Amino acid sequence: MIVILKEHPDERQMQHLLDWLKEKHIEVHPTVGAHQTILGLIGDTSSVDIDLISALDIVEDVKRVQEPYKNANRKFHPSDTVISVGGTQIGGGSLTLMAGPCSVESEEQIIGIARAVKAAGATVLRGGAFKPRTSPYAFQGMQIEGIRLLLKAREATGLPICTEIMDASQLPLFEDIDILQVGARNMQNFSLLKALGKTRKPVLLKRGMACSYQDLLMSAEYILAGGNPNVILCERGIRTFETYTRNTLDLACIPSLKTLSHLPVVIDPSHATGRSALVPSMALAAAAAGADGLIIEVHNDPPHAKCDGPQSITPAAFEELAGKLRAVREALQ
Amino acid sequence: MIVILKEHPDERQMQHLLDWLKEKHIEVHPTVGAHQTILGLIGDTSSVDIDLISALDIVEDVKRVQEPYKNANRKFHPSDTVISVGGTQIGGGSLTLMAGPCSVESEEQIIGIARAVKAAGATVLRGGAFKPRTSPYAFQGMQIEGIRLLLKAREATGLPICTEIMDASQLPLFEDIDILQVGARNMQNFSLLKALGKTRKPVLLKRGMACSYQDLLMSAEYILAGGNPNVILCERGIRTFETYTRNTLDLACIPSLKTLSHLPVVIDPSHATGRSALVPSMALAAAAAGADGLIIEVHNDPPHAKCDGPQSITPAAFEELAGKLRAVREALQ
Amino acid sequence: MIVILKEHPDERQMQHLLDWLKEKHIEVHPTVGAHQTILGLIGDTSSVDIDLISALDIVEDVKRVQEPYKNANRKFHPSDTVISVGGTQIGGGSLTLMAGPCSVESEEQIIGIARAVKAAGATVLRGGAFKPRTSPYAFQGMQIEGIRLLLKAREATGLPICTEIMDASQLPLFEDIDILQVGARNMQNFSLLKALGKTRKPVLLKRGMACSYQDLLMSAEYILAGGNPNVILCERGIRTFETYTRNTLDLACIPSLKTLSHLPVVIDPSHATGRSALVPSMALAAAAAGADGLIIEVHNDPPHAKCDGPQSITPAAFEELAGKLRAVREALQ
Amino acid sequence: MIVILKEHPDERQMQHLLDWLKEKHIEVHPTVGAHQTILGLIGDTSSVDIDLISALDIVEDVKRVQEPYKNANRKFHPSDTVISVGGTQIGGGSLTLMAGPCSVESEEQIIGIARAVKAAGATVLRGGAFKPRTSPYAFQGMQIEGIRLLLKAREATGLPICTEIMDASQLPLFEDIDILQVGARNMQNFSLLKALGKTRKPVLLKRGMACSYQDLLMSAEYILAGGNPNVILCERGIRTFETYTRNTLDLACIPSLKTLSHLPVVIDPSHATGRSALVPSMALAAAAAGADGLIIEVHNDPPHAKCDGPQSITPAAFEELAGKLRAVREALQ
Repeated sequence: MIVILKEHPDERQMQHLLDWLKEKHIEVHPTVGAHQTILGLIGDTSSVDIDLISALDIVEDVKRVQEPYKNANRKFHPSDTVISVGGTQIGGGSLTLMAGPCSVESEEQIIGIARAVKAAGATVLRGGAFKPRTSPYAFQGMQIEGIRLLLKAREATGLPICTEIMDASQLPLFEDIDILQVGARNMQNFSLLKALGKTRKPVLLKRGMACSYQDLLMSAEYILAGGNPNVILCERGIRTFETYTRNTLDLACIPSLKTLSHLPVVIDPSHATGRSALVPSMALAAAAAGADGLIIEVHNDPPHAKCDGPQSITPAAFEELAGKLRAVREALQ
Repeated sequence: MIVILKEHPDERQMQHLLDWLKEKHIEVHPTVGAHQTILGLIGDTSSVDIDLISALDIVEDVKRVQEPYKNANRKFHPSDTVISVGGTQIGGGSLTLMAGPCSVESEEQIIGIARAVKAAGATVLRGGAFKPRTSPYAFQGMQIEGIRLLLKAREATGLPICTEIMDASQLPLFEDIDILQVGARNMQNFSLLKALGKTRKPVLLKRGMACSYQDLLMSAEYILAGGNPNVILCERGIRTFETYTRNTLDLACIPSLKTLSHLPVVIDPSHATGRSALVPSMALAAAAAGADGLIIEVHNDPPHAKCDGPQSITPAAFEELAGKLRAVREALQ
Repeated sequence: MIVILKEHPDERQMQHLLDWLKEKHIEVHPTVGAHQTILGLIGDTSSVDIDLISALDIVEDVKRVQEPYKNANRKFHPSDTVISVGGTQIGGGSLTLMAGPCSVESEEQIIGIARAVKAAGATVLRGGAFKPRTSPYAFQGMQIEGIRLLLKAREATGLPICTEIMDASQLPLFEDIDILQVGARNMQNFSLLKALGKTRKPVLLKRGMACSYQDLLMSAEYILAGGNPNVILCERGIRTFETYTRNTLDLACIPSLKTLSHLPVVIDPSHATGRSALVPSMALAAAAAGADGLIIEVHNDPPHAKCDGPQSITPAAFEELAGKLRAVREALQ
Repeated sequence: MIVILKEHPDERQMQHLLDWLKEKHIEVHPTVGAHQTILGLIGDTSSVDIDLISALDIVEDVKRVQEPYKNANRKFHPSDTVISVGGTQIGGGSLTLMAGPCSVESEEQIIGIARAVKAAGATVLRGGAFKPRTSPYAFQGMQIEGIRLLLKAREATGLPICTEIMDASQLPLFEDIDILQVGARNMQNFSLLKALGKTRKPVLLKRGMACSYQDLLMSAEYILAGGNPNVILCERGIRTFETYTRNTLDLACIPSLKTLSHLPVVIDPSHATGRSALVPSMALAAAAAGADGLIIEVHNDPPHAKCDGPQSITPAAFEELAGKLRAVREALQ
């Protein structure tokens, strides 16, 4: 951590700061210039609240040198985290395909789609039971019945299930679910993150629409610090001024997050673009950029899907895409 | 709602759409051009899912004409909502001052600040007991003990209390609290919003950092639709590329939200800017623009505040500001 | 174009609007609902200024149905534009590699890099002579001498040259240059665009950091409307809240722009990310997503480049990347 | 400037860096920690290109401590710059009102509006002769004839004229103009900025839609470094995800820019919001926040304005607003 002092800092306040840092076992190395003094802070500064220092009258600016996350940091865990779930491995170089409908609508629908996506190469079934919707008047998912149908689909196909949890109080309902998804709007629902840290379930953590890589890694840190090492990072688009796409898919997150962290990175081109016509090319781009997995909305009848129809692709389109994804990854080996 | 069809739409799909709309009691008025057909949909389209229509192959685009919120909409409730709490009125033309520390730190601290801000003209005491922090390692608030101290401060000063609730499961702890704050990161925590809709407590709903006016009003709609009419909208900055300020304070939300809705609009210049030096001018700007209230962080000793020190102003600065705020509002009457 | 009227519009103003539209040979189809009247406007509305209509007291909102660009619109030019320059074809399915240093520094440097990138598969040499720099104190390029050296490098290698023009008055200096680049900061320098419309030179038009796809296509329209059909669109990142990367690379622009327009789409991963470590994966992603070309900064000695060193890759890294790019494109054929 | 080195930096490269800095007369103070070495650089680092250092293999990060602008920096010019033009003073505590139509349309129109806004308290007439329009098909202004009519309006009213210059080649046409406006889209048109630096004309420099405070001050620095001290900074909204307003007006720029710089700050609520109904409250907010001036679009007949009608207010509304603006500023004295 680096502390930049204002010109002519008050001596007494300066001493006060130095004493306080000493108490915290932080070594201080001052660099005194004609117009400015800079303090280099050495030691475990992750416990030093940057806000406390910047609030001091004598301080002009404070800059972190170390990342504020530890458990999620690749520096301290150089090798890739690989998460095993239902016979599938997520992370470490493979490309896991997760596919399924935005929301579970009926037994026939979810089992039908599960069989189709499995045949095409998916190894995880996704599907919403509890749906976070912007409007209170929109379809909110089949809820508990949806969970039951997802488990039936797992029974029928052997595919592990990934579905969204909206609140810590729902945890008992998700006991048999394989991967708990935290939606973008809940990425900083710290109560939920803490509760998930106490489980050992794999968590697919979606990046919030206004959240930086560091914010995402700090939310992962909440879960990891709780003792649960099974976190999968997921990019699903950030909010920008561009309105042609639903959000702006930030694929540079793939090499960036994989540099900063050891956690697997999965891309959701369906929610990011909001347009099925853009899903295949963005999925291929993510595969070429080294993503550990893709989560794709597939619906047997997109125009009649109960939600997110415009961004769902058909099982046939998914099959074609899966073939191309394999081709791209093979070409890059 | 307006549906724009692609050139040469498939007849059978077209008929299918028309039949479906008829079932929903929506009248359809087509406008046929050389290259394009436009359908004007008349009736209660708030129950029509825009996504279902845009997913159809024959549809190029769908545009809403009516706002998707009803209870929050000024068109259906022309007069201002005024919320009474602890002898204070929020909304309807007055400027309510809510002030207090970022977090409760001790009995002495919270009662001391409460007395100071009351003397300066504040009529609501704010203070955090449960603190949502980006880092799991940062101070998370005094929690239940913080709630107890806030109630002591109310006893000592008569000021009603506004404090943040992070999760629906905490509701019993907030039984005696006057105004429940929903933080920006929880603005689309729909489980929490639904739970708050079942209470009759005033809710201060903060705009999410990537949320539009419409998103904010849709989240208010969740609470209103649940039966709780006491929603206060709060702007606290949106996330942009500018990094000098913590966030970008969007003051145009004041006249905009007051045009679109009848709910009171409160501004939080402290979290928006993250710099105490900017708080007074932004508070004055909000007052001049017609805000219904301000929520301002005041701390007796900002450099030693346990959180958000850099954006807190002192009681003396608050008193000076409060005088100027009154002068501005009087000048505009 | 669709005009949504306010409730109970003034009859006289309404008639005035209808008369004005008639004069412009626009047919009007009204849809009258209980609360709202919608006018469907049919005809060539590209000449109707949307602002003029929305300014009317009786109008609540105006929505465009047709895109406001014609020459750039794929609807009116279904087949891909392919631009021939110095023996290379840009657009129409091939992947053109443009590579070279951020700025020309010496004859030896530019000819050395030109030879290296040509050997690796590049068919266009890029290099800056006039450099737009945020700071007036930063290196501004070798200017006229830089142009001269670029032409020497063309002579030595046969590679056509792409370099940035900053001002219409520079046009005479660029007479022998093959592709004129318009930088992101000049994308809406309409004086420059008009001047380029009068030439027949290929123009590489970079998307501005706050510009939507439509803005980009409207700027292309300026050049096309002037009579120059040779426009290449280039994405180089938009500005968002994320600071880890220099900008946010928006790869969804590839399928989007190719749907909306017939013009070739080239991606610049170097400026978008600002970090050489991210360039290869983003280049591969762009190739997988169907880009028509890539423009990549290559420098023999990045740490000593006179500008943009952090985002330049070495000739060796470029050669390795070029091989992978070919593999990806072959895998997708 | 602070340089953060990677763990175990290569000795030879390190020595190379130290030698290079020594040559530039930069003193280096190293702070060696267990995992990290930090170099504090002392001296005139404004001439050190941050990119050159960050490109080095041994460097993890570089952070500037000093602002990269000098002439625009309040640290080196503590007192406010006050610009005199046509009998009016801009900067230093007064609130200058600049008003007029988006574009000059006729002699009668411009003189009529000039008289009206002067009567209401404006001391500068604004009006567009050359109009930068997103669409090549939109009205591009009356151009030279517009300049002529503006000068007639000055003759008739004595008001100094502010109008937009789009290109350095237009300078001769603007010889008699009092204030040259640089539009947001040209804020980083460095050719134009350099040309303006050679004049001594007051320049109203509008902030680009994706430009930070620092970017704006660096563009001002281009003009100041050229020898022209007369720069007025102008905020007109930045581009964000919010679409209800045309742009997001960032009023926190007022106290921020006035802290960072000595240059006057003027606010344009008309272009920022794009809605006339929002202009008065945003103008009042800017006045309360301490703006040095306002530039407001006033049109005698907004619905028939040739451009930007939706954001223009009438002379009557301007008069009412001007009264309130004076009241707010008096209340704050």
